[in-house]
Amino acid sequence: MSFNILFRSFQTLSYVGTYKKIKNRPLRLYCAAVLGTGIVAYNQYQSKAKMKEIMQLKNYMANPITPVEQLEQNKDDMKTQMELLIMRIQAEFCRALEKEEDKEAKFTVDRWTRKEGGGGITCVLQDGRVFEKAGVNISVVSGKLPPAAIQQMRSRGKNLQNAELPFFAAGVSAVIHPRNPMVPTIHFNYRYFEVQDKNGVQWWFGGGTDLTPYYLNEDDALHFHLTLKHACDDHDSSYYARFKKWCDDYFYIPHRGERRGVGGIFFDDLDTPNQQAAFAFVTSCAEAVIPSYVPLVKKHKDDAYGYHERQWQWLRRGRYVEFNLIYDRGTKLGLHTPEARYESILMSLPLNAKWEYMHQVQPNSEEEKLLKILKEPKDGLQIEDKKRSNA
Amino acid sequence: MSFNILFRSFQTLSYVGTYKKIKNRPLRLYCAAVLGTGIVAYNQYQSKAKMKEIMQLKNYMANPITPVEQLEQNKDDMKTQMELLIMRIQAEFCRALEKEEDKEAKFTVDRWTRKEGGGGITCVLQDGRVFEKAGVNISVVSGKLPPAAIQQMRSRGKNLQNAELPFFAAGVSAVIHPRNPMVPTIHFNYRYFEVQDKNGVQWWFGGGTDLTPYYLNEDDALHFHLTLKHACDDHDSSYYARFKKWCDDYFYIPHRGERRGVGGIFFDDLDTPNQQAAFAFVTSCAEAVIPSYVPLVKKHKDDAYGYHERQWQWLRRGRYVEFNLIYDRGTKLGLHTPEARYESILMSLPLNAKWEYMHQVQPNSEEEKLLKILKEPKDGLQIEDKKRSNA
Repeated sequence: MSFNILFRSFQTLSYVGTYKKIKNRPLRLYCAAVLGTGIVAYNQYQSKAKMKEIMQLKNYMANPITPVEQLEQNKDDMKTQMELLIMRIQAEFCRALEKEEDKEAKFTVDRWTRKEGGGGITCVLQDGRVFEKAGVNISVVSGKLPPAAIQQMRSRGKNLQNAELPFFAAGVSAVIHPRNPMVPTIHFNYRYFEVQDKNGVQWWFGGGTDLTPYYLNEDDALHFHLTLKHACDDHDSSYYARFKKWCDDYFYIPHRGERRGVGGIFFDDLDTPNQQAAFAFVTSCAEAVIPSYVPLVKKHKDDAYGYHERQWQWLRRGRYVEFNLIYDRGTKLGLHTPEARYESILMSLPLNAKWEYMHQVQPNSEEEKLLKILKEPKDGLQIEDKKRSNA
Repeated sequence: MSFNILFRSFQTLSYVGTYKKIKNRPLRLYCAAVLGTGIVAYNQYQSKAKMKEIMQLKNYMANPITPVEQLEQNKDDMKTQMELLIMRIQAEFCRALEKEEDKEAKFTVDRWTRKEGGGGITCVLQDGRVFEKAGVNISVVSGKLPPAAIQQMRSRGKNLQNAELPFFAAGVSAVIHPRNPMVPTIHFNYRYFEVQDKNGVQWWFGGGTDLTPYYLNEDDALHFHLTLKHACDDHDSSYYARFKKWCDDYFYIPHRGERRGVGGIFFDDLDTPNQQAAFAFVTSCAEAVIPSYVPLVKKHKDDAYGYHERQWQWLRRGRYVEFNLIYDRGTKLGLHTPEARYESILMSLPLNAKWEYMHQVQPNSEEEKLLKILKEPKDGLQIEDKKRSNA
């Protein structure tokens, strides 16, 4: 990298030097043009080499949204750091899931751009043996924030002008709906936001990871919550309890009086203690996704199940759809944004869902056991304590 | 009915007469009590007889929400007229659908009440041979209008005070999702509203009927639209064109740039030319549902179809869910109303729905033909003209 920067300085110097020596205007223009072409060609070569190097090293799912040279030039900028983080998390998670699948089941990769600025990479594995629908999406977008979005941020307490403001947003989000009803669904999302108003740039992070089982397995829930807890505790001992409660409060379906799942962590507007520390926390959370979830997939992907369990899974996925389409802020905001790529927003919806009028679970069934915990969530630490007292 | 009123007058007269004749106070009280009990007993007998008579005549799905005596006493009130209309429409439609089903497939009937006032009758036929999920709901509710609802009405142009206002609402709504993908889904809803503010009672009607085919059959669409047109034309020659456009505009899924179906009619805030004329129009529309739809069920319920057509139907039902949960005003308002009976609101959702990432239809397929009309709806009358010019 330092060689690259040195060489770029040399390039500029030699170009300026050459230009100064040639007094004849047409020749000067010609030389400049030739040199210019050379520089462009060299940069393209170098950029391709660099891109190839990044791709080989990181095994990204597609080329980054921001040109590699720009990332290279602004490597200390948080925008770059976040883009590289989400590219890496996306690739690592997709590869980890593919390892659990049949060989022929691979993520399809759609790299898309949007007119106003930026784009995204949407990876979907659909109708696999292990995963019925797995979507892992990154987006890196910029432009002018629509007034509806500003209004929503103001109502959350962000002190922003009520005018169209330049913004940048980068995030990774994933929803994994496995086929086997004994494997829970996972959702995670980590994002970085910048908005520029008259007072300068305001930035913050948000995100979370949460689990939606179809059958409650307390060991699984404990493993999941503890993995997240460890990721949080490394940064701030108050984070886990606060962000776990936030998660329970957020993923709530008011009309049914039940949570979407057994929770996890959720946070927004995080801009403390400083940018690098907040980024380090988000990195830990994002890196905790694989160890929190993939062991559960390995453990249960070949569990026995039948028609009954599958129907229950589809009914629960109906509730998932209800939450995402009626209450989820991200989905609503996304769908109301002009030129939004709705296929990427709605990739969170399951392949199959079911709605039965007045569905009733059998008393003392495994289905009732899950419903009870969704109506009255247990604290992850209580689960832990209970386990310890039983041991 | 006239005998009943005469008899009641006689009752009152004879009771007052008896009371006047007895001077001894304890005896007077005893006689009054006996007579009173007799009157209550007779009224109960009479009420039961009346209820039985209404039930036999009308074959309602359950007892009306408002006590029969109260309906009887206020028989000229629009509240009563509307409740009796929606009870009749519900029963006629349920019976008409049951005739198309296997003998053992019958509507289950849930009569429910709400604390604040009123209730409803929800009839659902689920997992039948012909109908995968058919829901026909009536509700007759009263109470204080929540501020969110008033705000929504004000934004529609209703000149209402911004305070909790007493209201009454009665309506019938139905969504029928057949099993055979060649039979379209139908939705209809007819409702009457009263709100009391300091200026007195404001009232209006709303409603509509619309069709959502999975495969486009122009003859079916024509039959459907013409049946609605005739119902409208009997009342006001401008209604059909206006209410058809309103329907196209309302049942629109902005993020997909497509209509939910091939339209029909939709109207709201109807309070002209007068209450009885508006009620007569609503009655005609509600009575047009069976002739507009049941012939399509008869015609196609035994059509051949396979896995491919069924999958397409489920994908389209995913779009139906998207519209209902994200955009439909009634669903949103309903779910955000405290103590709402969400099972009745969400009975509109299909038994099964599917979401495939980036689903593509085959060029020149029947699926593409449908999609084209959903993206650029044809005018019902254009279809008619085309048909005539072809004849």
